[in-house]
Amino acid sequence: MKARVLIRPKEGILDPQGKAVERALPALGFEGIGNVHVGRMVELEAEDPERLDELCEKLLANPLIEDYEIQHL
Amino acid sequence: MKARVLIRPKEGILDPQGKAVERALPALGFEGIGNVHVGRMVELEAEDPERLDELCEKLLANPLIEDYEIQHL
Repeated sequence: MKARVLIRPKEGILDPQGKAVERALPALGFEGIGNVHVGRMVELEAEDPERLDELCEKLLANPLIEDYEIQHL
Repeated sequence: MKARVLIRPKEGILDPQGKAVERALPALGFEGIGNVHVGRMVELEAEDPERLDELCEKLLANPLIEDYEIQHL
């Protein structure tokens, strides 16, 4: 079964990549874009989707500073 | 308007992060997971969603080696 995991910095945790993109935008001619957040995406195929939560906690995300969301595709 | 951009290595381009995760899994007790691909995710708010394609090509993705997908949220 195919799944996609979206990993984001937790609310309140610094997001330096997002800030960097936001600051770069006006110089490149893009106005009116804000609230930029950069995270990671992992796509995979799992025989046993019930273990995906554990996989995210242990390997894919850092639960101290990141939230994750599992999408079944 | 909120949007999410998913950025993946193009088909046929090496995905070393995905391979690293795949190799780490059995040692951590996860069997039956394959076809792992690691990419980036950017979430943002845009006043003019028509320019998102241009934004992806110029700033968020490297079109030589990456594909991107825009999701309107």
